[in-house]
Amino acid sequence: MVAQKKLTGGVVRSDRDLADGRTIRYYDTKSQERNLVDAREPESQPEIGELRLDPLVNEWVVMAAHRQGRVFLPPKELCPLCPSTSEKLTEVPEHDFEVVVFDNRSPSLRTPQGDWALPDIVGPDTDLGTAAGKCEVVCFTSSHTGSFKDLSADRVRTLLEAWIDRTAELSKESFIEHIAAFENRGEEVGVTLTHPHGQIYAYSYVPPKVEKMLSVAKKYKDQTGKVLFDEIIAREILEKDRIIAKNDRWVAFVPYASRYSFEIHVAPLNPVADLTQLTEADRASFPEIALEVTKRLDGVFGIEMAYIAAWHQAPVRNGRDLLRLHWQITSVRRAPGKLKYLSGSESAMGAFIMDLRPEQSAEQLRAVVL
Amino acid sequence: MVAQKKLTGGVVRSDRDLADGRTIRYYDTKSQERNLVDAREPESQPEIGELRLDPLVNEWVVMAAHRQGRVFLPPKELCPLCPSTSEKLTEVPEHDFEVVVFDNRSPSLRTPQGDWALPDIVGPDTDLGTAAGKCEVVCFTSSHTGSFKDLSADRVRTLLEAWIDRTAELSKESFIEHIAAFENRGEEVGVTLTHPHGQIYAYSYVPPKVEKMLSVAKKYKDQTGKVLFDEIIAREILEKDRIIAKNDRWVAFVPYASRYSFEIHVAPLNPVADLTQLTEADRASFPEIALEVTKRLDGVFGIEMAYIAAWHQAPVRNGRDLLRLHWQITSVRRAPGKLKYLSGSESAMGAFIMDLRPEQSAEQLRAVVL
Repeated sequence: MVAQKKLTGGVVRSDRDLADGRTIRYYDTKSQERNLVDAREPESQPEIGELRLDPLVNEWVVMAAHRQGRVFLPPKELCPLCPSTSEKLTEVPEHDFEVVVFDNRSPSLRTPQGDWALPDIVGPDTDLGTAAGKCEVVCFTSSHTGSFKDLSADRVRTLLEAWIDRTAELSKESFIEHIAAFENRGEEVGVTLTHPHGQIYAYSYVPPKVEKMLSVAKKYKDQTGKVLFDEIIAREILEKDRIIAKNDRWVAFVPYASRYSFEIHVAPLNPVADLTQLTEADRASFPEIALEVTKRLDGVFGIEMAYIAAWHQAPVRNGRDLLRLHWQITSVRRAPGKLKYLSGSESAMGAFIMDLRPEQSAEQLRAVVL
Repeated sequence: MVAQKKLTGGVVRSDRDLADGRTIRYYDTKSQERNLVDAREPESQPEIGELRLDPLVNEWVVMAAHRQGRVFLPPKELCPLCPSTSEKLTEVPEHDFEVVVFDNRSPSLRTPQGDWALPDIVGPDTDLGTAAGKCEVVCFTSSHTGSFKDLSADRVRTLLEAWIDRTAELSKESFIEHIAAFENRGEEVGVTLTHPHGQIYAYSYVPPKVEKMLSVAKKYKDQTGKVLFDEIIAREILEKDRIIAKNDRWVAFVPYASRYSFEIHVAPLNPVADLTQLTEADRASFPEIALEVTKRLDGVFGIEMAYIAAWHQAPVRNGRDLLRLHWQITSVRRAPGKLKYLSGSESAMGAFIMDLRPEQSAEQLRAVVL
């Protein structure tokens, strides 16, 4: 028996176990049985990593030493994200699929054994922790080639349902504090598998960037009574010149103080804390704007732009009324043949220097003929 | 007349103007006249950039759009950091030099006109600022090839005197709040000129990373009465297994929660706020340990490691009793042919994942035969 669950948007989720005990979830819009069994030999699972406090800045660093040996840019014949065939067994037992999400084989974060707690932060005397959390892989398509922007609108909707479903389910785990879904695209950002896919990191702590957004939003709320992100969106809509796409439910813009030459934020006009709170209308109109902005991005130079596309959500238990869902796409490409590197100022001091005015970047993105 | 100034360590500084009004400072250990005049046609100076607040995290981003067109990896014949010859006029009018520091031709930060103030931070309503500050280039040697680790101990001492002198002088400017001296090495971290050199960024604001270190150190002092960095050093010395070099005045170690496979922190045993407070004995024994650790770094794989080496100092006016001088070297190389990329977790969430245990990294660095 395969456990099945009906989601919105006509999507059905079917769960199966992989040979080594990991779970794979098929997200389908067409009726499917998903009965094929993982015929590989079970592998032993890597141990849980360490969580160490960097006391200079009170930030957790995950030590996942087992990840050094992971697969690096395999050819198509060896791609572990393609469907299985009669000749080749991959991470996906079925011979075809729409969207699948499975537990990462080399996870940085793992489900902890028994009771788990984050150590108290007390400077250099802080105890060593274990790297609790979950890491999942999201395959966007069974096709080995192509990219997010080449998906159909229906497929983007299915993917959105998968992201929503994972957020809802992972939010129930007591050891998970924050859920981030992201796509790394391009070797320039360290992608080790070219098959169109993304990842979900469910952290057992609020990540440093989110913690900072939270403390800034809290201070703003205390001082003004307003939600910071809503005011930011209002300003972008009022000033107009950095907006690159808009529909009834969503707006996409280059932020006023962007850090990368091509940086796009996409936000619902109806503010929500996380993916699970998106309305049916929000969900239905996301594919259109998501495909438009990713096509515009590749259109600027007529090349595939390396990027990181990350969903920012409110943490699971904190600041649900302070932080808002939005999607940040940052490209490390400045120009054909030129990348934005994090050098001394950015990397060591955290001080970003931008080479292109955001208004000019927005103009270039708007000028792309789709 | 050339203005000359005697520094410690037998170093003499001679100042000259460049054709476009910028200043070049020669740091010499041998008696030198430094009379040659910059014979190039004066160029117009780029305008001062913008300072925009990223309201999501209350961090300043510098918009320096004029930097897009700067020189990119020129061949030796066109290197602007080599000494001038009878055939070629460069940034350095003299035909030979030891260490020089000159104002950057494409500065991200510039001296402001008239009164200058950082705008008050009030969320998305924060005023646009101007990118006040100073950017300087530090040439380590007149030789086009080689690297920091190939310098003589005497030359490293001269370089240290130049860093100290620049910190002292820039600290006097009312619009400067923080001074960072760093070296970016390798195309992998965006180096556009291969001539051995570093940079000085003098910021008109406390950079985000320093601000965070400051707030964490303040909280620790309030709670324990102790200086955080001193406790961190005490722990590293006590635990021993991450130390890679030590002499009477300095210690070098891979930090307990390093973020990069090869990350080395170098700190004086006599804690000081910034470079200007180093004693004569500290200065005299820095070259030995600095050359040792940079040689060890290149020795691990027998290749030139791309790295960022950054001096962390206390800000000019804040937290002088809370933050301590130290030198952080972070390499983006994980293995020959493998780089550490900042992907979704690191870049979008600020959550670092490390593939190598710091103790193993320290062991590999210690094992290098010099």
